[in-house]
Amino acid sequence: MANSPQALINKQDEDLVRDFHHVWHPCTQMKDHAEVPPLLIDRAEGVYLYDREGNRYMDVIASWWVNLFGHNHPRINQAIKDQLDKMAHVMFAGVTHQPAIDLAEKLVTSSSPDLSKVFFSDNGSTAVEVALKMSLQYWLQTGKPQKTKFIYLKGGYHGETLGALSVCGLSLFREKFETVLPQNLEVEGPDCLRCPFGLKRESCNAECFVPMEQALEKDHESVAGVILEPLVQGAAGMNMYPPVYLKKLEEACKATDVHVIYDEVAVGFGRTGSLFVSQYHELNPTFVCLSKGITSGYLPLAATLTTDEIYQAFYDDYESFKLFIHSHSYSANPLACAAANATLDLLTEAGFMESLKPKIKAMHEQGKTLRDLPWCGEFRQTGMIAAVELVQDRETLAPFPVAQRVGYRIFLEGLKREVYLRPLGNVAYFIPPLVIEPGQIETMMNAAQDSIIAVLKGN
Amino acid sequence: MANSPQALINKQDEDLVRDFHHVWHPCTQMKDHAEVPPLLIDRAEGVYLYDREGNRYMDVIASWWVNLFGHNHPRINQAIKDQLDKMAHVMFAGVTHQPAIDLAEKLVTSSSPDLSKVFFSDNGSTAVEVALKMSLQYWLQTGKPQKTKFIYLKGGYHGETLGALSVCGLSLFREKFETVLPQNLEVEGPDCLRCPFGLKRESCNAECFVPMEQALEKDHESVAGVILEPLVQGAAGMNMYPPVYLKKLEEACKATDVHVIYDEVAVGFGRTGSLFVSQYHELNPTFVCLSKGITSGYLPLAATLTTDEIYQAFYDDYESFKLFIHSHSYSANPLACAAANATLDLLTEAGFMESLKPKIKAMHEQGKTLRDLPWCGEFRQTGMIAAVELVQDRETLAPFPVAQRVGYRIFLEGLKREVYLRPLGNVAYFIPPLVIEPGQIETMMNAAQDSIIAVLKGN
Repeated sequence: MANSPQALINKQDEDLVRDFHHVWHPCTQMKDHAEVPPLLIDRAEGVYLYDREGNRYMDVIASWWVNLFGHNHPRINQAIKDQLDKMAHVMFAGVTHQPAIDLAEKLVTSSSPDLSKVFFSDNGSTAVEVALKMSLQYWLQTGKPQKTKFIYLKGGYHGETLGALSVCGLSLFREKFETVLPQNLEVEGPDCLRCPFGLKRESCNAECFVPMEQALEKDHESVAGVILEPLVQGAAGMNMYPPVYLKKLEEACKATDVHVIYDEVAVGFGRTGSLFVSQYHELNPTFVCLSKGITSGYLPLAATLTTDEIYQAFYDDYESFKLFIHSHSYSANPLACAAANATLDLLTEAGFMESLKPKIKAMHEQGKTLRDLPWCGEFRQTGMIAAVELVQDRETLAPFPVAQRVGYRIFLEGLKREVYLRPLGNVAYFIPPLVIEPGQIETMMNAAQDSIIAVLKGN
Repeated sequence: MANSPQALINKQDEDLVRDFHHVWHPCTQMKDHAEVPPLLIDRAEGVYLYDREGNRYMDVIASWWVNLFGHNHPRINQAIKDQLDKMAHVMFAGVTHQPAIDLAEKLVTSSSPDLSKVFFSDNGSTAVEVALKMSLQYWLQTGKPQKTKFIYLKGGYHGETLGALSVCGLSLFREKFETVLPQNLEVEGPDCLRCPFGLKRESCNAECFVPMEQALEKDHESVAGVILEPLVQGAAGMNMYPPVYLKKLEEACKATDVHVIYDEVAVGFGRTGSLFVSQYHELNPTFVCLSKGITSGYLPLAATLTTDEIYQAFYDDYESFKLFIHSHSYSANPLACAAANATLDLLTEAGFMESLKPKIKAMHEQGKTLRDLPWCGEFRQTGMIAAVELVQDRETLAPFPVAQRVGYRIFLEGLKREVYLRPLGNVAYFIPPLVIEPGQIETMMNAAQDSIIAVLKGN
């Protein structure tokens, strides 16, 4: 069953009129909604979202990359209800509670061995701000106050509060705020599709590490840390690069006394086929930032993990004033922690990670539908994340002009075909809930193919 | 029943050991917990928190100022469960849902008349960052790109992400990060206890507005907006000042083309005896930031409200790239919106605001217990917020030295007396859930008095 255009443009629904009058949606040109209103989603189940008319849309980007176990999962629902009957929330200074303690222990146990402390906040941006602030204060309190800059990668994305934006390597997000951003150092990072060395990510030795090596060599005395998204730069268009880059980074940072901050907000919690990128690849970051999948897409929650070495630089008599002062009212919200504990239990159940393998294979195989398209610049995949970069010319890899809004038009075509795709520019991507079935993967890829053809035929 | 010290220092509880090993608590010198572990709170009901031994603590600061209707409120619990059965969350770009639409409409209807648009985020810091970014981008897109600075008040607090910290007027929160903060303008604000004009807040004409007036006159061409907490500067120690200051500010900002940003994160939702300060005092801010009480202390949620004039500067064809780019994955989380809708229904029920009046009176009357203390520099109150500023000398108002940790010691004494007080420095304060009963107010004030005497007797 395909969705009718009527379902998409149902201006009769008074709630959509109220939405248009009162709601300012994130990352949205609201004038677009004068033509096509947002979907009015009423309920969700498994991998599907349902509107009031009963039309369904497969949530192939997992509601901004957050949902792992499908919507309305009985165990996560029950965990929240059980916690709700005891206590929804209590402040987290001077007080603790079992959901947070359990979650902290689970995170410490399942992440890289050196990570031993967990600081909770509310979203990916705050998880990053916490890491940046801890890094700065660490250097201040250990005799290197001149280390105040961060290195970030071109194409990197770490959230949109001003501190997080100051380490963003995508001009789209930062250009309007450039005049007020803290000054940091942008470094050219991996660009495997258009590799300047003419190499392949499967076999290279991260030759593109040179600019980072040079930056660390030149500026390490003023650099507090390097922040990056390991393996997959999400907002850049699911740019994927090999783990050897991360190995080189760790060595170089260790040699130059610089913190390594991995932003696993998007790639953590099973997305790449392992629980965490840093743990699976035996990396030893100074900080790891987590959010999104942490509650399987139920509730806002974030965590910044760090090492005992960092912690000890703040641990002292009160009078030293070395404590880390950062708070959000809802830090370690018990309902969100309960959802996160249920999520980690599901993720770490015997056989779960193994169960992803056939799905990862299915995404690769079904990806053929997209690889064969004449506009396919590259079909790339890291675990349960796949993406197709659409280009005007497969030889030159010339992109479609922004003004054509290829991504937005594919999004609209997708809705007609029961899939909620939301391409990043000219990159259509797939981060489905991990519980997606192989048959649904086939449906998803076919619908994407049809949507792309509907928009680009004739190009 | 007083709580036994054993309940406070129960190192036998293995969960507290796990907490100490893995959790880094916000705004906490973790070494303090080597001596006195945090309270392990297990459940909560009404105005009380309960630990595992069944000891109870009156939550007189409403879990960091968030709880309005007591813990475990049947209607809010039910609202969350009902929403959970339909859908916990869905992304908020390209999609909308009834809980968010209803909430946006309620906020617009009950706030100042010019506020017509609602942008959702997760916490007070992000609500402020959104306002700052919208203000900057507005001026950029309306021909005044040189307006890039914000004026904030000494003593002001607006959150702890780096952008929010850049408008913080408390050195405690910002001093370790000063080198990286965006440069803004701090202005001397009201200090009614130590008024330099020798006036009283009940009868003055905000003579202390002069520095703000001068700053606006001198710098308005580079100033995007002024941000402040209306009536009560919370983190500064519940500093209270009269509404005439806000009237003067609005006039001056209007005359100089500068945005007014009211941070009502702490004072909104009934705290001062009215739903919102800005609405009650017939103010017309450009932005209002809300969080904390918005979900009655259940779940993280925030909203930035603004005017149609601001909105229209972003509303254009997509190709103009005037859209506001800011997103958090869990924006407008439906569970949090459901809690917020139930909260606003309770707040706006006939008679509710009226029901606060006898409680406000009781807080004033019971405050006598504290006013009569020899260390009472001032007992001050705005609606359901009260505070006692403790001083060494009532004549000179000389403060206690920080190293004495008067506030922390009162906190520990309070726990023994069943109240969870957490003074800000030398200011003990009360922001209880709005449902607190007059008899409980008496208990709270008496316990506070006893705790203060226990710490300060002999001083």
